[in-house]
Amino acid sequence: MTLSATELDRLDPLAAVRGDFFVVDPDLIYLDGNSLGRLPRSVPATLADAVTRQWGEGLVRSWAEWFDLPQRLGTKLAPIIGAEPDTTLVCDSTTQNLYRLAWAVLARNPHRNRIVTDDQNFPSDLYVLRAVAAQFGGSLTIVASNGVEGPVAGIQDALGDDVGLLSLSLVAYQSGYLYDGKSMSALARSVGALVLWDLSHAAGAVEISLRDWGADMAVGCGYKYLNGGPGAPAFLYVRADLSDELSSPIPGWFGHEDAFAFRREYRPVAGVGRFLVGTPPVLSSLAMEAGLDILNQVGVPAVREKSMLQTRLFLELWQDRLVQHGLSLASPTDPDRRGAHITLAHADALAISQALIHRKKVIPDFRPPNGLRLGLSPLYTSFADIEEAVVRVESVMREGSYEPYRGERPRIT
Amino acid sequence: MTLSATELDRLDPLAAVRGDFFVVDPDLIYLDGNSLGRLPRSVPATLADAVTRQWGEGLVRSWAEWFDLPQRLGTKLAPIIGAEPDTTLVCDSTTQNLYRLAWAVLARNPHRNRIVTDDQNFPSDLYVLRAVAAQFGGSLTIVASNGVEGPVAGIQDALGDDVGLLSLSLVAYQSGYLYDGKSMSALARSVGALVLWDLSHAAGAVEISLRDWGADMAVGCGYKYLNGGPGAPAFLYVRADLSDELSSPIPGWFGHEDAFAFRREYRPVAGVGRFLVGTPPVLSSLAMEAGLDILNQVGVPAVREKSMLQTRLFLELWQDRLVQHGLSLASPTDPDRRGAHITLAHADALAISQALIHRKKVIPDFRPPNGLRLGLSPLYTSFADIEEAVVRVESVMREGSYEPYRGERPRIT
Repeated sequence: MTLSATELDRLDPLAAVRGDFFVVDPDLIYLDGNSLGRLPRSVPATLADAVTRQWGEGLVRSWAEWFDLPQRLGTKLAPIIGAEPDTTLVCDSTTQNLYRLAWAVLARNPHRNRIVTDDQNFPSDLYVLRAVAAQFGGSLTIVASNGVEGPVAGIQDALGDDVGLLSLSLVAYQSGYLYDGKSMSALARSVGALVLWDLSHAAGAVEISLRDWGADMAVGCGYKYLNGGPGAPAFLYVRADLSDELSSPIPGWFGHEDAFAFRREYRPVAGVGRFLVGTPPVLSSLAMEAGLDILNQVGVPAVREKSMLQTRLFLELWQDRLVQHGLSLASPTDPDRRGAHITLAHADALAISQALIHRKKVIPDFRPPNGLRLGLSPLYTSFADIEEAVVRVESVMREGSYEPYRGERPRIT
Repeated sequence: MTLSATELDRLDPLAAVRGDFFVVDPDLIYLDGNSLGRLPRSVPATLADAVTRQWGEGLVRSWAEWFDLPQRLGTKLAPIIGAEPDTTLVCDSTTQNLYRLAWAVLARNPHRNRIVTDDQNFPSDLYVLRAVAAQFGGSLTIVASNGVEGPVAGIQDALGDDVGLLSLSLVAYQSGYLYDGKSMSALARSVGALVLWDLSHAAGAVEISLRDWGADMAVGCGYKYLNGGPGAPAFLYVRADLSDELSSPIPGWFGHEDAFAFRREYRPVAGVGRFLVGTPPVLSSLAMEAGLDILNQVGVPAVREKSMLQTRLFLELWQDRLVQHGLSLASPTDPDRRGAHITLAHADALAISQALIHRKKVIPDFRPPNGLRLGLSPLYTSFADIEEAVVRVESVMREGSYEPYRGERPRIT
């Protein structure tokens, strides 16, 4: 039985969740939640209170409410990534967190100083992993993919007893390829390596079971499907029985077992807290809580279920309306191996994306060299949005209402 | 001619600046601006706009306004610390920034792998400097002071041709000792070491001339005398002709010469920007701008002039009213060697500080083991506040209205 987009919206158990977000212009189709999620409705009041009451009135006394922010937000994040409550922190940026964890792994066993990743991992991850390996006299192996699927066999071949760390994006930032977290974590374990997942494009979009997978570590950002706001703090996870074996390269006072004793000797706190560094950005952290609350209320399984229907609908519409205009699929066809965003390839992707933004009220991402990336964030994207977006892309292609883009490449995360 | 506090306030050219800050309860005397500065009046509107218009309405398009935040805020900070515009960044936390810069110095010349500091430096700095030295097979020398003055002669003795870095707090977090930035920078230079200043308790309180001093590097936090808000991003400075010789240990995409090309190879941008790592916390960053604007409008020389009158008044009143109650001075007596905060020592300092907070509407800091730290932030502290604070401290001492504090040690930064 074929259902229309309108019918799918009527049946959608999450349809009402869109109301939890701030939507100024309902005609704007926002498919960039995988770069910056929408604003939860409660955040303006939260921030106003944080600024005026907590900072303005409470002044330094409000630190009583702020000290545990990395842990408190971490506890709210935990169910979203399948972690135990005391194994996660919300702090710093993804790249900062990746550095400390990768460094800690190699420091623990400097004989295993090779790191393995793939060419679909986010560039900043590649830079940091390469730098960390070099700091220990090792190297980074970047396994080549076909640009769409994760190179599972190649990774298996690349692993050896000199490898300390396998680090991958669970969902690739470009193709949206979704690794099998369980089997890849087991693969790393089988050769005596640890695994570190970058969950930036996965958290809040797909089901993640770090504990059940036996995953060792994870990092990720807060501003995509978690809807934590621009530059929201990132997160990190360390397996409960692993953290005390690891040392941070940046032993900051917030990771001290008794920071406010101001001792001259560093003694790391037990557990994941040792990976804290300095004072957390309180306002940006507080803005993140609402998005986590919404996700916890809805539950990731329901999000994923809707997401799979949405990418399926999108691909049906793509087949019907866009293939003929030369937009090819640069994402996996297998729904189980796909996150919540889809990338279409076209030589003029940059120009097409600019035409969509400036003339058609559709906001996608352009990703070099030729990717038109569409994030179908299930919490606030309707099935009708998806159909309408395809119609608008089609009209851009039909009208030829785009010209090869000649301006400065736009910088959108 | 002796002037009263009231007369000093009437003559104070900065008296009106207090109006730029949010003061809910004028009877509360806030002497903790050296832990968290007051809220500038314009910040609630700035944040409301950032949240609702920029994030909620502009969505990912608002990154056009956000990308340069670390540089834009850095340019506003530059005159406050005597730096050229393109040599400063506002980013991350002080401890994070200290790590990257100290690491870069030792990586540049690993034969000089000893770092020198003093025992008045902030504990988090000691932890990180020790860790960095160890990462290069070196060590940290902590020169002992008398607890009040900086151990200048001891530092001179400790420097040698194995020392790569001298790192000190320009103003000591506890005693308020103010180093002579020019002569200490020259001292480091004379032995072929670089100098890295922690300006956390100095920026916005004392005159700083990094360029004229020939200082190599600096870091500092944004939430004290800069009034940037709780967990405001920190800053870093690298001498203009030095930055291209340095490599960051955390080569993140925001420090790439072309971040949004998403290349797999890292190429650092020219200049200080290479020390950026990941996505900046936008909301916390935007909250910081107002404090910088106020300081730039007033100018640091005027702030310092008022500050010196204020600590002088405080010490006169301390001499008259508090010495007899056993509160001794743990800060320098020489006004030229003193920042904007004063620490008094007393065995019951914790209990006294709690009595002041809970019974007398005075907010100081307690600093273990016996320090009552009073930050006289000139932008919004009046001379009358200072006199009244001393009267209230005196009344606590007279009434004996404090008991040895038995609760958990309060955690106030």
